[in-house]
Amino acid sequence: MAETRHDVVGIGNAIVDVLAHADDAFLEREGLAKGTMTLIDAAQADALYSRMAAGVEMSGGSAANTMAGIASLGGRAAYFGKVRDDQLGQIFAHDIRATGVTFPTAPATDGPGTARCLILVTGDAQRTMSTYLGACVDLGPDDVDEETVAASAVTYLEGYLFDPPRAREAFVKAAEIARRNGRRVALSLSDPFCVDRHRDALRQFVREHVDVLFANEVEILSLTGATDFDDALTMIRGTVPIAALTRSAQGSVVATADAVHAVQAAPVARVVDTTGAGDLYAAGFLFGLTAGHALAACGRLGATAAAEVISHFGARPETPLAELIRPI
Amino acid sequence: MAETRHDVVGIGNAIVDVLAHADDAFLEREGLAKGTMTLIDAAQADALYSRMAAGVEMSGGSAANTMAGIASLGGRAAYFGKVRDDQLGQIFAHDIRATGVTFPTAPATDGPGTARCLILVTGDAQRTMSTYLGACVDLGPDDVDEETVAASAVTYLEGYLFDPPRAREAFVKAAEIARRNGRRVALSLSDPFCVDRHRDALRQFVREHVDVLFANEVEILSLTGATDFDDALTMIRGTVPIAALTRSAQGSVVATADAVHAVQAAPVARVVDTTGAGDLYAAGFLFGLTAGHALAACGRLGATAAAEVISHFGARPETPLAELIRPI
Repeated sequence: MAETRHDVVGIGNAIVDVLAHADDAFLEREGLAKGTMTLIDAAQADALYSRMAAGVEMSGGSAANTMAGIASLGGRAAYFGKVRDDQLGQIFAHDIRATGVTFPTAPATDGPGTARCLILVTGDAQRTMSTYLGACVDLGPDDVDEETVAASAVTYLEGYLFDPPRAREAFVKAAEIARRNGRRVALSLSDPFCVDRHRDALRQFVREHVDVLFANEVEILSLTGATDFDDALTMIRGTVPIAALTRSAQGSVVATADAVHAVQAAPVARVVDTTGAGDLYAAGFLFGLTAGHALAACGRLGATAAAEVISHFGARPETPLAELIRPI
Repeated sequence: MAETRHDVVGIGNAIVDVLAHADDAFLEREGLAKGTMTLIDAAQADALYSRMAAGVEMSGGSAANTMAGIASLGGRAAYFGKVRDDQLGQIFAHDIRATGVTFPTAPATDGPGTARCLILVTGDAQRTMSTYLGACVDLGPDDVDEETVAASAVTYLEGYLFDPPRAREAFVKAAEIARRNGRRVALSLSDPFCVDRHRDALRQFVREHVDVLFANEVEILSLTGATDFDDALTMIRGTVPIAALTRSAQGSVVATADAVHAVQAAPVARVVDTTGAGDLYAAGFLFGLTAGHALAACGRLGATAAAEVISHFGARPETPLAELIRPI
């Protein structure tokens, strides 16, 4: 196996988040289900944006947030994701590089603009997301740099990539390169609606390619078809080598064929905005895994990183995470 | 005098802020004087941006922040300022309208992009700003809608408008319309370096046009040429009907020819980012003035609005200010 140049390379939808406060009545008027992600087209994005409150723009994207978290922890991360060569694309590229993540993907020079995720944060700190994929639909297998994947200990994929049609080919290509080079493949299920949309394809991909699976409770129920968490846990332990299942305030469960570790959530003085909680859990977990820590310690690192990101507005860490993890 | 349609119309540089954390060493390496605003060109903006940390984009602009504050207090505000028809321009227009401010200025369809202010926030909550004016240089007298100015109780101008050459003509045109219609003109001095660049023109403008002058301690010393605050106060009382002079944690002084009111600063649990403090003081003050409150009460409203904005990241209120001011 060649030298490891990156701990993790992430592949995902490259998105700029627009965060604004909203109340439950607004969500209801817009027909949005709290806590989930809905795909919208350009016209719907313009219409929703015109009605929502003044916002804050921040680079986002699930796997991109995870890579920013790994860099913030002191890990070496790379990222593939497609923006357009517009102002939001420049913001995305600047921010991910400024966190120390290698970002080699060339921006699209025509076609739809950089993707936007309109995130409505309610008073209960829940986030409700409406995503216009824009330039993300241009991500394809050519954007997967073979050398980078071959030299990364883990290739991390977000389930959202099953939505733009050519991204799935990129997904499979990356997984095959990783496997050929003796590397691990990790997948996050992203969202229960995303799992509903692509259940069969995701099940096949998990069986054939995935070494580490991240999911929350609703997502793992949706993937397995189980009706309670314990059944889902049993089913998934037979399917993937490592499953890291998050349960919000109840912490997480890290399971292999041999063992199940229950990990407590890290304390948070005030939960402000849960955007990015799952992304940062994955960051802490993968940072720990690639540093050679035991699985329970990986879960605790995930909990620590998630606790930081839910304590403020936005999906990327504000505090250098490396300062929060000594001693683990 | 015709019916008042707006309490205040603001005219200013329409800017999107890019806020990022930085340390003193970074400011030193970049040759930036802490707490001030420097004008930079497009190439300098790109170079500084490429070196600064990941940021958050939020609509800004001094007078625009003030108008957003007035709307948040429940006042009726309008704003003139020039953006380009690009993504940052769309963000600016959305945000100011979403706060309830009337924003009629047509975006530029060619020329430089929407203005950006790169704001570096240090651990001591100070902000150091580098502004690329971009499309702001296109603001001219044609953008001053006579009817709107005539129907606004106060026309509020930011000193920064003396920087783009044609904006000064817009400035004078607006002041003359206001005067002709029996309205008041307010001016904020914006920044000591801005006063240094335009001292003679600003002095003449203040004498000829201004009814309410906002300045902080350094700015009023720069304008008057006085070496201590008391001398500056004496000099300015003879020049403008109302002077509202802010002194950071020492509160503010509101002075007329007849009386001087010392107003305490409002308590803040933790000062996070002083960006927007002066802008929101002006918002509270003008809201009070147009609602018919006594000058000391106007100063207290300014202090309350400023306290909210320095308690979080960013230059516009996060809490509806109307909720903070009952009873005044």
